[in-house]
Amino acid sequence: MKSWLEKRALLSPDQIGLYAGKSAWTFREMNEEATELAEKISPHIQNQSPVALLITNQPQSVFLIHALQKIRVPVLMLNNRLSQKEWQYQLKDSQAQLVIYQDQFVINTDRAISIDELKTGECWPYVPFEEEDVCSVMYTSGTTGNPKGVMQTYDNHFSSASGSAFNIGHRPDDIWMCAVPLFHISGYSILMRSVIYGIGVRLYEKFDERSIHADLVNGKGSIISVVTTMLERLLDVKNERYHSFFRCMILGGGPAPLHMVERCHDEHIPVFQSYGMTETASQFTTLSPADATRKTGASGKPLFPGEIKITDEQGEGCDDYVIGEILVKGPSVTKGYLNNPSATQEAFSEGWLKTGDVGYLDEEGFLFVADRRSDLIISGGENVYPAEVESVLSGHPAVKEAGVVGKKDDRWGEVPAAFIVLIEEVEKETLHNFVSKRLAGYKVPKMYRFVNELPRNAAGKLVRRKLKEEINHESV
Amino acid sequence: MKSWLEKRALLSPDQIGLYAGKSAWTFREMNEEATELAEKISPHIQNQSPVALLITNQPQSVFLIHALQKIRVPVLMLNNRLSQKEWQYQLKDSQAQLVIYQDQFVINTDRAISIDELKTGECWPYVPFEEEDVCSVMYTSGTTGNPKGVMQTYDNHFSSASGSAFNIGHRPDDIWMCAVPLFHISGYSILMRSVIYGIGVRLYEKFDERSIHADLVNGKGSIISVVTTMLERLLDVKNERYHSFFRCMILGGGPAPLHMVERCHDEHIPVFQSYGMTETASQFTTLSPADATRKTGASGKPLFPGEIKITDEQGEGCDDYVIGEILVKGPSVTKGYLNNPSATQEAFSEGWLKTGDVGYLDEEGFLFVADRRSDLIISGGENVYPAEVESVLSGHPAVKEAGVVGKKDDRWGEVPAAFIVLIEEVEKETLHNFVSKRLAGYKVPKMYRFVNELPRNAAGKLVRRKLKEEINHESV
Repeated sequence: MKSWLEKRALLSPDQIGLYAGKSAWTFREMNEEATELAEKISPHIQNQSPVALLITNQPQSVFLIHALQKIRVPVLMLNNRLSQKEWQYQLKDSQAQLVIYQDQFVINTDRAISIDELKTGECWPYVPFEEEDVCSVMYTSGTTGNPKGVMQTYDNHFSSASGSAFNIGHRPDDIWMCAVPLFHISGYSILMRSVIYGIGVRLYEKFDERSIHADLVNGKGSIISVVTTMLERLLDVKNERYHSFFRCMILGGGPAPLHMVERCHDEHIPVFQSYGMTETASQFTTLSPADATRKTGASGKPLFPGEIKITDEQGEGCDDYVIGEILVKGPSVTKGYLNNPSATQEAFSEGWLKTGDVGYLDEEGFLFVADRRSDLIISGGENVYPAEVESVLSGHPAVKEAGVVGKKDDRWGEVPAAFIVLIEEVEKETLHNFVSKRLAGYKVPKMYRFVNELPRNAAGKLVRRKLKEEINHESV
Repeated sequence: MKSWLEKRALLSPDQIGLYAGKSAWTFREMNEEATELAEKISPHIQNQSPVALLITNQPQSVFLIHALQKIRVPVLMLNNRLSQKEWQYQLKDSQAQLVIYQDQFVINTDRAISIDELKTGECWPYVPFEEEDVCSVMYTSGTTGNPKGVMQTYDNHFSSASGSAFNIGHRPDDIWMCAVPLFHISGYSILMRSVIYGIGVRLYEKFDERSIHADLVNGKGSIISVVTTMLERLLDVKNERYHSFFRCMILGGGPAPLHMVERCHDEHIPVFQSYGMTETASQFTTLSPADATRKTGASGKPLFPGEIKITDEQGEGCDDYVIGEILVKGPSVTKGYLNNPSATQEAFSEGWLKTGDVGYLDEEGFLFVADRRSDLIISGGENVYPAEVESVLSGHPAVKEAGVVGKKDDRWGEVPAAFIVLIEEVEKETLHNFVSKRLAGYKVPKMYRFVNELPRNAAGKLVRRKLKEEINHESV
């Protein structure tokens, strides 16, 4: 196949595909930009290993993403908030052949080139791609071990896009507002939908509630993807009804508190709560506004043709209302982790991906997520895996062991908090600096508490639930 | 995967999925009907060979089609207008294990069971299906040789459905009017879209222009699929503007004459001309009403993400405006012909399906079909392959050779006409009866002309174009 942007430019050359600030690009113009970049990148490409991007939400980033599709190398989307060490890990693990970065970032590798350094190049050899080829790679952490590179194929993105269209409808004049990061699947998937559907994306460099509010009121977009924190901030500034062109707010990245759902209902905000992950190429289930008040706390039903089942510890299917592990299956689900067959094998059971999240289905098939996988902390829409933070803390010579949990926070939903058993005395600030050097800012604990021991079950396994109860009861 | 209807019934149980006459069924009710039928059919199933259906456009037929998806056997859709001999050929060639037929049909095989004979059965073993499994088989004839069974996978149908939605938009309240036969891809694909999108189908037993007109005026449907003859008949009775709910008329099965396109434009009928075939799981290119007057005679651009190329006799790509063979590629294209690897191999070139049709692309990528494959005759939306009719005629002892072409016809667009070189004298009526016993009525020539020889080129190949010119110049 030709690249998706190339096809879209053939089908809808004069349609606006991208809005950013006061500028706009038709699909033809986008394709020209991407072609130019592809020609510049091409001389630096040695093989089919990923090319990493270290970018922000800029039009240039959109063109870069499409340029990499043109030369058919998978893109590794680096979270720009991570630390050097975290980036290094991903580059090494993915065997990335090149990093292309925006000028404001510094990355320590000899395989990096800044966007401005890219010089007019030569024609690249045209390599058609197949649906099952890897399009993008994004790293996620898990219960244990190192972060893993989730492979997202073209078919994954296409299926996710079609399932979403069948769910919320597709209007040829839709404009999808993107204030979520392009390096997350939430943002990246909007770019894919834009070329697959032939609709415009309105790109925001960052989330500013006042300007987004103004755009919603003035009919600048019909769909927006947000995380809970963003919706909270939007509600804070809301003083006018949104334009009738606006028809759909996709809410992801953690559960929405009841008061928020009710407020949206009262204010006629069409919120679609959703559940998904990097491994499902964006939302996997969605709850329509019509069901939101009837099914409080639910995450909805799978997008067509995805499937969900709940299993107990023996892998047997659970009855309705019985809590177990959430497994997902369908064409939007990843085929596995990059260069990591053992993690892939461990993650799947007979074609079903074991999410590690816990929940149940009701008799109508609505999913209720009881607990995110591995005590996942969701802070401002970003995933923080306790095991990863604990592992860094334990690496400090003064620390014997650590337990990290989410502490409720008005602004971020949750922030990480650390319980620490010491070997020898150490300042909290010293620990804080130690972690800050190794992990992205949003992963660094906002609270440290020294304790004599950590709660463990009979098998000796850390019971984070107890720490969580302790910290959150205090804070209430 | 579960069957599509089963999933849809889980996602949208209370949505109406089927309207027929004064009755209507929700997806939940449809699923119950299909489950009951699956239980009745199940005891008759021995293996994974196709089950043939000999049916008309009845609600029962819809449930049967979904029942077969439930037990995961491919369905062979028999054209109910064919002759016994033609049916026998398809049953044998496909190794069909069973024929389920409506009472009004008689089919000579011991593997047949009428719908009414199906008795309450047992639970069938749940067999999940995969995207690449064959969902349906439909026979088409070609330039030479016997009819071939086109395999349509679930993925083919899904891709066709999504490509169409991205093109014409998808509204959750759409109702698709189906007056084309369910045994053709045009009708079958509407059923697939219904469960994939979650929208209603309004099913008509046959095409009656007055009742369809009334339904279009009264807002009973938002989309309709028609062939040229149907549109002509609709225009004949049109005396009122269609309802604003009606938004899309997909026109297939042969080119639309200019006067018809202009009339539709004047009457505000949103006609989407299309080009497709059994091998592409319904329309492959579509021309929007916006482009219809600007691009007279065009068949539009491919549905996303399908691709088209034009090649010359050496298989090299043609420049814009240069006529050559039309090749198609994409996830909606068949993987080949059932039990016929040699025909499959012959039909494909490096992953591209050679349609046998002839045409060109303009500089914007619009397809213009110059000539249908193998002098295909399209009569009232049905395909008639000259080679098939000639082969039957040549089988008569009095006939030395025959040439069959399309003669212009006011009602049907074209009808078959036969030029015959005799060995010995014979009555036209005798020949007519001979052919009628062996071929469907619409394939039987409406005119016979005895000639001394047939026009052939230097290589001795029949030049049907000359016969066609001769007959049509006379009739003008």
